[in-house]
Amino acid sequence: MTKAEKRPVLTDVAMAAGVSVATASKALNGRNHVNKNTRQRVLDAAEKLNFSPNPFAQALNFPVTGTIGVLTADLSSRFVLPILMGVEEAFGAGSTSVIISDARKDLVREKFLLQTLIAKRVDGIIVLGDDANARPSLSEHVPVPVVYAYTPSILATDCSFTPDNAMGAALAIDHLVARGRRKIAMINGEPRFEAAQERSSAAKTALESHGLGFVSGEVLYGDWSESWGRQGVRALLNARLDFDGIFCGSDQIARGVVDALREEGHSVPQDVGVVGFDDWELFSTTSRPPLTTIDMNLEHMGRAVAGELAAAIAGVTRPGLHKLPVRLVPRESTAGLDGSLATRVGK
Amino acid sequence: MTKAEKRPVLTDVAMAAGVSVATASKALNGRNHVNKNTRQRVLDAAEKLNFSPNPFAQALNFPVTGTIGVLTADLSSRFVLPILMGVEEAFGAGSTSVIISDARKDLVREKFLLQTLIAKRVDGIIVLGDDANARPSLSEHVPVPVVYAYTPSILATDCSFTPDNAMGAALAIDHLVARGRRKIAMINGEPRFEAAQERSSAAKTALESHGLGFVSGEVLYGDWSESWGRQGVRALLNARLDFDGIFCGSDQIARGVVDALREEGHSVPQDVGVVGFDDWELFSTTSRPPLTTIDMNLEHMGRAVAGELAAAIAGVTRPGLHKLPVRLVPRESTAGLDGSLATRVGK
Repeated sequence: MTKAEKRPVLTDVAMAAGVSVATASKALNGRNHVNKNTRQRVLDAAEKLNFSPNPFAQALNFPVTGTIGVLTADLSSRFVLPILMGVEEAFGAGSTSVIISDARKDLVREKFLLQTLIAKRVDGIIVLGDDANARPSLSEHVPVPVVYAYTPSILATDCSFTPDNAMGAALAIDHLVARGRRKIAMINGEPRFEAAQERSSAAKTALESHGLGFVSGEVLYGDWSESWGRQGVRALLNARLDFDGIFCGSDQIARGVVDALREEGHSVPQDVGVVGFDDWELFSTTSRPPLTTIDMNLEHMGRAVAGELAAAIAGVTRPGLHKLPVRLVPRESTAGLDGSLATRVGK
Repeated sequence: MTKAEKRPVLTDVAMAAGVSVATASKALNGRNHVNKNTRQRVLDAAEKLNFSPNPFAQALNFPVTGTIGVLTADLSSRFVLPILMGVEEAFGAGSTSVIISDARKDLVREKFLLQTLIAKRVDGIIVLGDDANARPSLSEHVPVPVVYAYTPSILATDCSFTPDNAMGAALAIDHLVARGRRKIAMINGEPRFEAAQERSSAAKTALESHGLGFVSGEVLYGDWSESWGRQGVRALLNARLDFDGIFCGSDQIARGVVDALREEGHSVPQDVGVVGFDDWELFSTTSRPPLTTIDMNLEHMGRAVAGELAAAIAGVTRPGLHKLPVRLVPRESTAGLDGSLATRVGK
């Protein structure tokens, strides 16, 4: 490979500074004590060589065991699997193996699995959660780099990745408004989830930026189920509210919403435009009609987290909460009617 | 732990025979060449000690790297994840780590990942497929034990585990008949899948054992989707067939079936009893009404496969195709009407 020739790697920095690779790494990542003069020598060498770490090249040039651990909160979670697939793809393409450890929502088990991973001398650990509520940091108990995915660490000095929920909610509202909807309700999931709160709050702000508010005054909260989506629609209809758009906290809720609207004689998208959240294709593409929704790019997040961990293993850390962009996927549930007046339902 | 005191382990056999643990293992598993006299000495010692390998105790008492590889055909498959969870749970409770490698249906990638696993010196490999169609054997290219899960190896000398599809179909038909249904149709998935063929054929045999046949003459084949389930029901109704029970090739199909029946004005279970296959709770419990279905016990299969691999690593192999029992989970879609005459629909 010519990559190694073109791009200085950690070994080059270490040689130029006259120190070991391990010392160069410590000096660059600042996680361990290194003599002040030595550290300066390494930093100078890195600057002189224009050393800009390629995470994977770095990981591959580093004296490591070639295994990383993924500690999942719950493997059966819909959010965990696509991220794990991204991680596996990123590392699997090289020679790094991914050990999977599933805590099954059990903190005692998590602690045990973490000790096992450390005993196996993994080079780094990805802590992969299934909700957006911040979790305790593990970093001080772990001698290798840790990156948090989906569920952030409460410590700002840790490195965490989450999807940008606020961006998703703003995209959803802007899209409904661009499709001529002005009387918009929101049927959300469980309010104890940070993701639900972030989506509600950003949707409100987005509506306000268009001079609008929720047609129902408040966001309707329930659980993350189809059944709640159906109930939510009936609550709006029973309240005799006049609405032409519904933003849902998840695709499962949205599927319940479109089913209930159809069963009550209202057309989607002609009478009501519906936007989901997740782009869980099992629901978003099989819904009648298919759902416009927000794709959190979870597999991409997995690859990003893998790259970040590889960089951290190579000594380059970027602490903080990184919110990754999401995107709107338009489908039939908001099709047509651009700019036209929406018809009214509910009374 | 007192377990080790009560139960002789491989180390005890090796000591009694005066050989190394590695030699004792080779002698017992027969995979490597061992001097004939030595082999007999080990077998005698094993018999005298009443050595009956506890797979996990064995694995833990064996000079191994403590990692196994799971090579998946497709991590995103609905069938792969529960089996992987069972595997992870079985090994994660001990000190064996599970490396996950996802081939993503790409044979070139599979070969590369297999080489990587071997290079990492895993103690054994689980090959985890996502359909019941037999696959090429990997065993001759791999220096460690291999166990095949869900997708069997074509070689009878390999060790494979699949769910007992025929048993599931028989349970479904017997249940419908026990609930008084006599005019039964089957709406199945894609005929190119072995699982679809096995289910059709066993359903036919079960009907015949009750002196019945498919009310539609033939099994209806389509794909594994809700949309096909809805179409299948409309095909039965358009043919003006008189039916009171439908056995579906999957829960997704079954959910489409109950939706279409409701939309066409027929009650489930009053007019038609419906049985699905998979017990995929995302569909089976959210369906209106919830589905009676066949649970393939996939997480249990994962634990069984893990145990089998641990035993194989310890030198005890059980070649062949092992069909694991499945079970019927009764829910509202076949509730009530026991023994009573079913009402007729369709004309």
